[in-house]
Order: sequence, then structure tokens, then C-alpha cells
Amino acid sequence: MSSIGVGLIGSGYMGKCHALAWNGVRPVFGDVARPRLVQLAEVSPELAARRAGEFGFERSTSDWRELIADPEVEVGAITTPNAFHAEMAIAALEAGKHVWCEKPMAVSYADAERMGAAARAAGKVTALGYNYIQNPVMRHIRRLIEDGAIGVVNHVRVEMDEDFMADPEALFYWKSEASSGYGAPDDFGVHPLSLMQFLFGGVSRVMARLAMPYADRPSRDGGRRQVETWDIASVLFELRNGASGVMALDRAAWGRKGRIALQVFGSKGTIAYDQERMNEFQLYVADEHAAGQGFRTILSAPVHAPYDRFLPAPGHGLGFNELKVIECHELLRAIAGEPDALIVGFERGLEIERAVHAMAQSHREGRWVAV
Amino acid sequence: MSSIGVGLIGSGYMGKCHALAWNGVRPVFGDVARPRLVQLAEVSPELAARRAGEFGFERSTSDWRELIADPEVEVGAITTPNAFHAEMAIAALEAGKHVWCEKPMAVSYADAERMGAAARAAGKVTALGYNYIQNPVMRHIRRLIEDGAIGVVNHVRVEMDEDFMADPEALFYWKSEASSGYGAPDDFGVHPLSLMQFLFGGVSRVMARLAMPYADRPSRDGGRRQVETWDIASVLFELRNGASGVMALDRAAWGRKGRIALQVFGSKGTIAYDQERMNEFQLYVADEHAAGQGFRTILSAPVHAPYDRFLPAPGHGLGFNELKVIECHELLRAIAGEPDALIVGFERGLEIERAVHAMAQSHREGRWVAV
Amino acid sequence: MSSIGVGLIGSGYMGKCHALAWNGVRPVFGDVARPRLVQLAEVSPELAARRAGEFGFERSTSDWRELIADPEVEVGAITTPNAFHAEMAIAALEAGKHVWCEKPMAVSYADAERMGAAARAAGKVTALGYNYIQNPVMRHIRRLIEDGAIGVVNHVRVEMDEDFMADPEALFYWKSEASSGYGAPDDFGVHPLSLMQFLFGGVSRVMARLAMPYADRPSRDGGRRQVETWDIASVLFELRNGASGVMALDRAAWGRKGRIALQVFGSKGTIAYDQERMNEFQLYVADEHAAGQGFRTILSAPVHAPYDRFLPAPGHGLGFNELKVIECHELLRAIAGEPDALIVGFERGLEIERAVHAMAQSHREGRWVAV
Amino acid sequence: MSSIGVGLIGSGYMGKCHALAWNGVRPVFGDVARPRLVQLAEVSPELAARRAGEFGFERSTSDWRELIADPEVEVGAITTPNAFHAEMAIAALEAGKHVWCEKPMAVSYADAERMGAAARAAGKVTALGYNYIQNPVMRHIRRLIEDGAIGVVNHVRVEMDEDFMADPEALFYWKSEASSGYGAPDDFGVHPLSLMQFLFGGVSRVMARLAMPYADRPSRDGGRRQVETWDIASVLFELRNGASGVMALDRAAWGRKGRIALQVFGSKGTIAYDQERMNEFQLYVADEHAAGQGFRTILSAPVHAPYDRFLPAPGHGLGFNELKVIECHELLRAIAGEPDALIVGFERGLEIERAVHAMAQSHREGRWVAV
Repeated sequence: MSSIGVGLIGSGYMGKCHALAWNGVRPVFGDVARPRLVQLAEVSPELAARRAGEFGFERSTSDWRELIADPEVEVGAITTPNAFHAEMAIAALEAGKHVWCEKPMAVSYADAERMGAAARAAGKVTALGYNYIQNPVMRHIRRLIEDGAIGVVNHVRVEMDEDFMADPEALFYWKSEASSGYGAPDDFGVHPLSLMQFLFGGVSRVMARLAMPYADRPSRDGGRRQVETWDIASVLFELRNGASGVMALDRAAWGRKGRIALQVFGSKGTIAYDQERMNEFQLYVADEHAAGQGFRTILSAPVHAPYDRFLPAPGHGLGFNELKVIECHELLRAIAGEPDALIVGFERGLEIERAVHAMAQSHREGRWVAV
Repeated sequence: MSSIGVGLIGSGYMGKCHALAWNGVRPVFGDVARPRLVQLAEVSPELAARRAGEFGFERSTSDWRELIADPEVEVGAITTPNAFHAEMAIAALEAGKHVWCEKPMAVSYADAERMGAAARAAGKVTALGYNYIQNPVMRHIRRLIEDGAIGVVNHVRVEMDEDFMADPEALFYWKSEASSGYGAPDDFGVHPLSLMQFLFGGVSRVMARLAMPYADRPSRDGGRRQVETWDIASVLFELRNGASGVMALDRAAWGRKGRIALQVFGSKGTIAYDQERMNEFQLYVADEHAAGQGFRTILSAPVHAPYDRFLPAPGHGLGFNELKVIECHELLRAIAGEPDALIVGFERGLEIERAVHAMAQSHREGRWVAV
Repeated sequence: MSSIGVGLIGSGYMGKCHALAWNGVRPVFGDVARPRLVQLAEVSPELAARRAGEFGFERSTSDWRELIADPEVEVGAITTPNAFHAEMAIAALEAGKHVWCEKPMAVSYADAERMGAAARAAGKVTALGYNYIQNPVMRHIRRLIEDGAIGVVNHVRVEMDEDFMADPEALFYWKSEASSGYGAPDDFGVHPLSLMQFLFGGVSRVMARLAMPYADRPSRDGGRRQVETWDIASVLFELRNGASGVMALDRAAWGRKGRIALQVFGSKGTIAYDQERMNEFQLYVADEHAAGQGFRTILSAPVHAPYDRFLPAPGHGLGFNELKVIECHELLRAIAGEPDALIVGFERGLEIERAVHAMAQSHREGRWVAV
Repeated sequence: MSSIGVGLIGSGYMGKCHALAWNGVRPVFGDVARPRLVQLAEVSPELAARRAGEFGFERSTSDWRELIADPEVEVGAITTPNAFHAEMAIAALEAGKHVWCEKPMAVSYADAERMGAAARAAGKVTALGYNYIQNPVMRHIRRLIEDGAIGVVNHVRVEMDEDFMADPEALFYWKSEASSGYGAPDDFGVHPLSLMQFLFGGVSRVMARLAMPYADRPSRDGGRRQVETWDIASVLFELRNGASGVMALDRAAWGRKGRIALQVFGSKGTIAYDQERMNEFQLYVADEHAAGQGFRTILSAPVHAPYDRFLPAPGHGLGFNELKVIECHELLRAIAGEPDALIVGFERGLEIERAVHAMAQSHREGRWVAV
């Protein structure tokens, strides 16, 4: 199998996560093109060079346009702040690169639409970083639902909570600025929405109530600055399949560190999952033995593909970073033309963006808004 | 301390629970009037006599009006189906009895209002069976919130789920008839609403989306009958204190047996609770030691009064029935004139009823409805 | 059904628990003789009178021999400190009473044997307070094991831990005196041993290592006093059925409040239980569906008799005190001559005592000791 | 920073795990020599070539001696079946290579001693695959214990359970042959023993009871073959620091997939951990606020180094494979001469082997055996 040239823009939190994925994808899966790590772009030449050395990239640059112009780069991975996604992704697509872009697509829906149009025009593979759908546990949950293991789904609940905005006296920073987006709906909401799309085909309408737990925060200059984003969102939704549900999003939820709690209720059973324990899920299936009924705690195992590519023993556990390895594998499969690759391209990503903006509109207007 | 004459109407699920409470309240607490179990009413003389014998009542009757007319009965406990509450409670109040009535107050709001008016007119003590607020753990949660242990509350989530309506092929029975009420909003919703009242002073407006997972059910005659109530409710709400929240109610939630899951997020910490593990709760308090932060699982203990009246050792656990013993104790304290007795009288119960009807209206009209 | 006269000696922790049981047993079960609460004995006339009033006893005394001499007392319940058990139980048996005695039987094995002999001679019903075997969950576990649900049992682990002796600076009191017994082996060990007897027919030999975490403790006079009992025991054991196991007992285990953790491994599955969550247990049954295997968390429910006598709804939960109501019911059934009553009489209690003394001998001699 | 030449013998379960570690260690940590993947050895040239291609090795061979003779190989990683460890490790050391060898060291203690002698003679770095000590959570537990967070440790419990030998009708294979070792004591016991060494300096004496749940198993020829190893071990032990404990090992424990459950009790608190939820642990610290005491569930986080090298966000979780990346990093640090590198070299590994053989001797002789 041949190789594929990779360019990486950004080397922070998700940038490093991408770098680990590019290094690990072939040792783990074996069946894909060998990634050739061509070039890494960062804001300064020094940082770019250091990260390139650490991550195994051949070249580095402080000019992301140079990376995109590099003919040896075949796929461009974009892990910069959200405000840069549109410009970089469109440029990369126009230069004939495949694009792997972190979520959310863009701050404005207009930009997201331009990205979608560019992807259509370029005919290249695009993938958004909705890594939680790649968890072997989540994939197995989808299989269970598709196979009717819990019957017809009639109610869904999903919560996403972390606490990095929980301290009211934490300094004001860009996540509280309106230019970063709405807050909880886009910063967090896109992940539960990606699960709703992955599991059920997406949401059809929403009713949201956003909340701002702290009106202002201390600023670096010693004063206080008014907060412009919503850290909390409470949402009712309807799925395309007709079921209803509730969603709660909170970036200020003390004690929650990476919680994405999902509950799916069906006519024959129930599934529950929490990302903070990403290697297990709960399954209840109604049957006739009343004395022995209960939720099963099922540990991730080789039978939940592609866990088996990482480990032959059950219950030993994957980590967050390994979800990105799976995502990278799906991206490479899509580039190789395999039709069943599990990625969220720009086209399907737009549906998620629409739901985000519908939440904001619903809050403003106090009514249900169709997606 | 003297005795107090008790009459009990109904001896089913909650009737037996009341009987256990009347037998246990004085051995447990010691500091209240001795209940004298005067009379028990049931639908047939035989059943009434048998239950009276088992539960320790002196007399029995198949005519509840006879019980209410009995001058030795000072407090009447009503545990009959909801449709009978109003008539019996009003008659008992008019006969000068204190009234202990199971929830919800009545099927229609008009009836509930009449009950409230009768209580005001009689000047007697009334208490509704909102037993979950009596859990020593829940009382301790209230103290923590009042003491500011988790700071200013900014988001609340509450779920109530059981699965007795989960089987789509279970026979149609009265809980699916419109005459029984709305379904999830009143059958279940009143309990979470009682917690919202107990912890936060109640809800100010609601936005609800009701759902009917199964359009029809098999009927006894071999055909199928259309379902008229909503087994599922998804609700956004605002608390009187300004915080927002989400509520999910589901009588068809496979695997949930007695779940009332509560999450309270504040500016300094978080509290989580689940009625299925009613002897513990989770507390997270933000502090400076980042390496050691985590949710504490706190087991019920003598320090959480009145657990100490039941058991001197921590972590040994109370049961559902013992919550009713505490409720009975609070009722007797109220009758004895103690102003801090923790009961939900008919007056405060009306607020809960209003919220229930607001949910139904909100669903019909697709908009927020003030309570 | 007629009544039965009850005398209660002691009204502390377990005395109150007994009183609650006597008040509750007939309302809960309905099918047993009505307990007539004849007389209560305590150390002072005042305390005796007060408790009799609270608990509903007709008479009171500060002379337990007077209670035993009372012809209206048919069953004597002994809840005094362990050192008094033998004398009181033997006197009661000799006076022709049935005896319900708290555990352990006695401090010395000789005394326990004398109690056993007195029971045989009297031909009366005896019952020891091994209430954990009465939990509907534990009974269901026994049924599962008997029915072969987990196949042939091959390994058992049991832990009992609390933390009332965990503070090294807690004042020296009688539980650290040799006159109280060995410490962990008898104060705690008897409970896991009662489970081993209930589930598997008892242990055949033991190998123990006792430990004393704190050599001395502060005494009331301001000095320090040497500790004479073992707060910790580590034990290997073999069951009569051939399986082996480990037991850990710790009265100084910080954070454990009422833990009795049991794990039973068999050729077809595994059962796990923890008394701190006494309304649930874990069951794993091997079957062919590898992708869906996991431990089920099964909540106590009406199908786990006699839970149904307390509550018609699953997952609502019993409390520690209610186990004693069940024990009282079994005692009354035994007195009524029902052969399948689930009580541990003095005869079977002696086996448990022998295992306790074998642990101590094993520790002294550093070798396996047969029971 | 320069590079280091790596040779890998074996590409199965642990071989792949090593390969992932070599590919990931520099992208994750950045501060170590760049591994140059020189040569991979497998049993056939074809398999060797395929794995080399997948894992990124430059060359491949079916002759492990060729790999060891390769002057560009500076460190040899041995992941073959246990019976080959001694010969390969000694050869590699004699050829002047550093050696990274999977556990256990060898089947016989004599072989393990020869490995230790070879390591001393060669003066090269050796590391055994005790990866569980590398978990940031376990490292943090060690820091807590060293810092006195739970006071003086007085009791320790450790369990290791999986179920790959649980099916009595699974085919006989080499793990049931005496030539593979004792069974549970070496196959599993070495891991808990490595934790006892890491946390407490090791065990000083043991008392073991081994068990063979199934006397025979079906063989491939259609008959049955007698089992020669012990799948279960029950062990009492004493730590070098004086505390006592219990250990349970079970390869036939249905439902357990990767359980290594640790409980550490001290004079000021308690720590609990379970490898099946390797990204969290439980901490109870005694303090004066009785109403708020409970076990904290602490999620792994950047404050638990070196979690921060993988992820900047808490609660997102590492996987089993990432422990090997940390182990690889420690190995490279040791090779670089850093004195605080956390590896178990052959010298310290011998202590673990001695404890294993002491268990077997203790079982045979029915008495305590010093390590």
C-alpha cells in the first residue's frame, strides 16, 4: 500500500491529538496508506520546527498558506481556533487537498455554507472532528439500535458537561466573547448533535433556553468585563424519526470533566452511556425473567469493532486519543474510496450547524424552530 | 403525651404504607402523640375487617362516610384512587378532621382548588404524600443548598422514570384513560415538582413537550384501545429563584424502577442524587486542591437528621416505607402546633397542581406558560 | 390468629431495632400471631418506663429476671451487651421461653455451648440475630446458587468493613478490651460466617492473620492504654462444599460504614453484593452473546420474596430495620411450627462460634485450623 | 536530540502494544531520543515483513539472533512467550543491548536469576513490562501514600481477575500445562506484586492456597486432558512495612475482564482503585465534617503527571496502550541516565519472582513462607 502526504496546521490540544493519530493509524490498523508527515504549520517558525521534530514531520513553516501550496501535502488537517477554519479549509480545498477539520465548522453559518460549497466544488474528501462517534462503544450502540435490540426508540436524553467555565472568578477570556460563537450551543452542542445524527439521523426541531450563570468576570486589567456567551443550554428536541428528547449543555458544571451522558429509551429496552467512562455502557433488555432483570454494564471488548485492532483482550480500555486514531482511519478509508467510511463530511456537518443556529433563534424567539 | 385517633381510608399500596407509618412513628420518634388506630375503611366489609386485623385498627367499615363521622377519628388518611380524593378530603375537613391525603390532590384543578378552600375554611392541618422530601438525604441536600455549600444554583435537572407502562403489549388499564389525568405530568411530575418546591421554592414557568410512545394497547376484549394519556414528558422550566432547568418524566422507561435523578449545579459545586440509591448522594465542592477533586459519595448517616431516630450507625440504610414514617411524624408535629413541621399542605400543594396543568397547556400551545 | 407475649431486654441500638420489628411484623406480613408487647427491661426503672411507653410495651422493669419470670411473656428478646447473653438466654430457656438473642452468642465458646445445651434441653425455639441473611436480595442470591444459575461455586470472597475504630486517637473503650472478645473475628466475622453458612453450608477450615493497627489509645484519665483486641483480620478459608475463599474484616476501615461485600464465582457466572447498597446485587451469567455480556445491576423487587410484603413496586428499597422485621417473622413462623423458617438457632449458631475461635487459634499457631 | 535503534521480537498482543509505544513515545513526550525502528523478528519471514511494514520497521527477519546481532539495534524488546524470555534476554544483554522484556521474567526461578546475573554483568538497562505502575492514577496513589494523605497504611487488599479460563468446556491449551508455570501466581500474581513493590516496597512473606476449578478440559483430539495449573490463588501476605493484606487471583472469574482491584486502608483514610476503570480512583480522607464525608471519585487529570503529556483536559481518559507509551518513556529516560526513571529492572523483578515461587511453596507446605 502506498503513502499519503499529510500537512498539519496547529499543534495545540487537538493538533497534538491529530499528530498522535497520524503516527498511530498504520501501526494500529495496518490496512491503510502509510501517512507521510510532510509539513507542520504553527504561528512561529521556532514552535513549528520544535513540534515538527517531536511529531515526526519532515518540514515546518509559520505560513499555513505555504503548507497548503506544498504539492506533497495531499491532506490538510486544520486544528486552529474556530475563526480560522473557513478560510483555511476553503483554501485547502481549492488547492486540491482533502481536508480534516476540527469542529465546529465555523462561527457563522454563512462561513459554514461556504465551506460546504467549496467541498462540493472540489470533490475532495472532508471530515469534521466528531470523534465521539468513533468510540467502539458508540458504534456498538448504533448497531444495537439498528438491530432493534431496544425496539422503537421513543425518548432520548443527552447531556454534555465540563467545568472549565464553572469558576465565576476565572479571568474573562475569548470563550466569553460573542465573536467565539454562542457558547454552549456551538462549543458543546455540536457533539451531542453529532451523536443524534450518527444514531438517529439528526434532529428536526428544537426549543432552547440559554443561560448565562455569571453576568461578568474579572478582566486582566483588574476590572470586570461583561460576559457575552451562554455557558448553559436547556433544549427540547425532536428527532427526524419522530421521537422526542431533552438536551442539557453546561460548560460551568462543577465536577463534570468530560461528561457526555446519553440515555436512549425504546419499546424493548434502554441504553445508557457516559463519556467519562467511555469504555463501558449500560444495556437493559426487557425479557420474561423478571427476577433477573437489570442494567448490564458492558465493557468495551474486541467484539465491539474496531476495539480489536487496538487490543485483543476485553475490558482493558481505550483512551480519548485513540478515538482520533479511528477517525483518522475512517478518513483514510474515505480517501481510498471506501463508501462505508464513518466520517462527518462538510455536507452532513452543515446539518449540525443548522441545529446550533436554530437553538439560538429558538431562545431569542421563545418558540420551537425547525432545523 | 396523649394519643390521637386515626382513620385510614384505603389499604392498597399506599394504604399499607400509611398503616406501617402509624404503627412505627411512635417507636421510632418517641416524642409524639400515640396514634390510636380507630377505624379502617375499605370497599368491602370483609377486606376492611381483614386489613384492620392485620394493621391493628380497632374497627372497620365499608362506608368511608361512617369513618369520617366517627368522633374518635381525629385525623383521616386518604389513600384511595385519585378520583376520590376531593370528595373524601373535603368531607373529612368539613367533619373537623385533619387530613393526610396521597398525591396528586385531584384530577382536575377545580377539585384541587375546592380542597384548598375547604382546608382554609376548616382551619385543620392538611398534608399531601410528598414523601421524597422527607428523605434525610434530601433534607440534608436542602441544608447544603441553603448554607451555600454549592454557591448560587444556576442549573437544575430532574428525571423521574419507571417502567410499569413500558411494555407496548401490556393490557390497557385506567392509567391510559384521560379520566385519570394527563399521564406523566401528574402521575409522576408532581414528585419532581415537590422537590423543586422543597429545595428552591417552586417553578415559575414551564415549556413542555408530551409524548405518547404507544398509540394503542390491547384491551381485555381482545381488540385494541387507543391510549389517551402521555407516558412521557420533556420539560424546560424556570425556578422562582431565576435558575433554569430541564425535567424528563417517563412511565415507559425500561429498566428504571424508581428513579428520581436530581442534579443541582451551583457556582461553587454540584449535588447529584438518585432515588434508586436513596441512601446516598453525590457532592462536589470546588476547592483549591485540583489533584484531589471529585464527587463524594456520601452515605446517609445519623448526622443527617432524622436518620438518627431510626439507626445510630451510618451507612446502614433506610427504606422507602420509612420515609412515610417521617412524613407521619411531621404531620403529628404540625397537628401539635409546631411551626417548622415539614409538610406540604393543600395550600402549597395547589402550586404543584398549577405547574402540572401549565405543562399540559404548554404542550397544547407550543409555548412557555407561567405557573 | 392468636397473640404471642413478648418481653424485650435492652432498648439500645438493637433493642430499638427489635421493638420496631415487633410493631411492624404483623402489619407487614399479616399471617402471624399478633405480638402482645408485655414487658420491657432496662437498667433503670425510669429508662425502662420511658422506652416501654415509646415502644408500646405494657409494663417495664429494671430487673430482667422479673421479665423472664412473667408468665405472660412467651418469647424473650435479648439485646444486651454480649457478656450477658449466656446468663439471660439460659435463664429464659429454663423458664420455658422462646429466645431471640443478638449475635454473637457469647464471649467464650464454653458459654455458647452451655446456651446450645440449654436450648436442646428446653426444646424451645431459639434465634440469633443474623439479620443479613434475611435480606430479600440475599435470599434470592441463595436461590440463584441453589438453582445452578452460576454453576458450581469455586471461589468466594467476603469483606466486612466499618470505620468506628478507625480513628487512632479515639478514646479507649470496651471494644478494645480482651474481655469483649477477639475483636474483628467475633464482632464482625460472625456476619460473613453466617452468610457462608446460609449460602454454602459453612466453612470447614480457616487460616487467619489478625492485626492490631493501633497499639494503644488515649484513655479517659489522660494517659494511654494498650489495645487488647484485633481490629483487622485476614482469612483464607475452605467451604464445606470444597471451594476456597478469602475473608477480610476491618473495624478500622476509614470510609466504610456498613460494607459487607460478597463475591461468588462459579463455573457459569458470578454474583456480587455490597450491604452498603443492600437493595441491589450484580449478576453475570455466561452465555453465547459475547457482545452483550456484562454484570447486571438487579434492584430488589417484589419477585424477590418477601420484598413483596413491604412494597408492590420494584426498586423502591427496603432499609436495614426491615431486615429485622423479616427475621421476626421467621421467628414467629418457627414458633408456629413451620419447618422451613429461616432462622439460625443456637445449634447452628455454635458452628459459627467454632469458626471464630478457629480463626484466633490459627493466628496464634500460624497454621490452618479445622472448624 | 539523537535517535536510538530499536529491535522488536514478537508482534502479537504485547508486541503490537510495544510497536504502538515506539511510534507514540516521541510525539507524546517530545523530550526523548527519536526511536529508529530498525528491525522486527517474527516466526516466519512473511509475517515478519508484514508486521514490519505495518509498524514502521525498516527491516525484518525470522531469526531473532540476527536481530540481536544487528549493530544498529541498541535496545531489544522481547514480547515472545515466557519460555523464550531467558534465552533471548541473556543473548541480547551479552550482545550489549538494553533489554525491554515482557513479564514474567521466566518460567523457572533459576532462569530468572540467570537473567539478573546477565543484566548485572552487561551493565545495560533492563525493564520488565509492569505497565500498571505507569498509570498516572497509580503514580498519584503512590504520591498520596508517600505524602501521608491516608496516614500509616495498615491493611491492603488486591484482586486480579479475568475470565479467559472461566469456561470449563474451553479447549485445553498451553496455559493449563505445567510447563507454562503455576498459573494464577505467575500469570497474574506478578502484576499485583509489582503494585505492592511500587507502592510499599514489596511483600515479606506469603501464605497461599491455590485452587484448580476444573480438573480436566476437552482436548483437541476429542478426549479430555488433565489440567496442570492453578487458575485461582487466595493469598495472605505481609508487606515489608509491616502491614498485612489479602490477595485474590482468578483467571476463571466470569465477568471480570481486566480487573485489578486495590484497596489501601490507612490511619487517616482509604484509597480504592479498579483497573477496569483505570481513569479514576476513590479517595476517602478522614476529617472533622462528618456530614460531608464520603469516598471521592477522582478522574484522571493533567495534575496527575504524565497524563498532561497526552491530554490537556481532565476526565477525557487514557487507554491501556498508553500505559506502555509511558513505560517506554521511562525506559528511554533510564537509558539516557536519568536516575529517577520508573522501571522495574531485572534486579527488582527478581523480588517479584521470589514472591511467586514462595506462594507455590506455601501452598504445598500449608504454611507461611518468607520471600
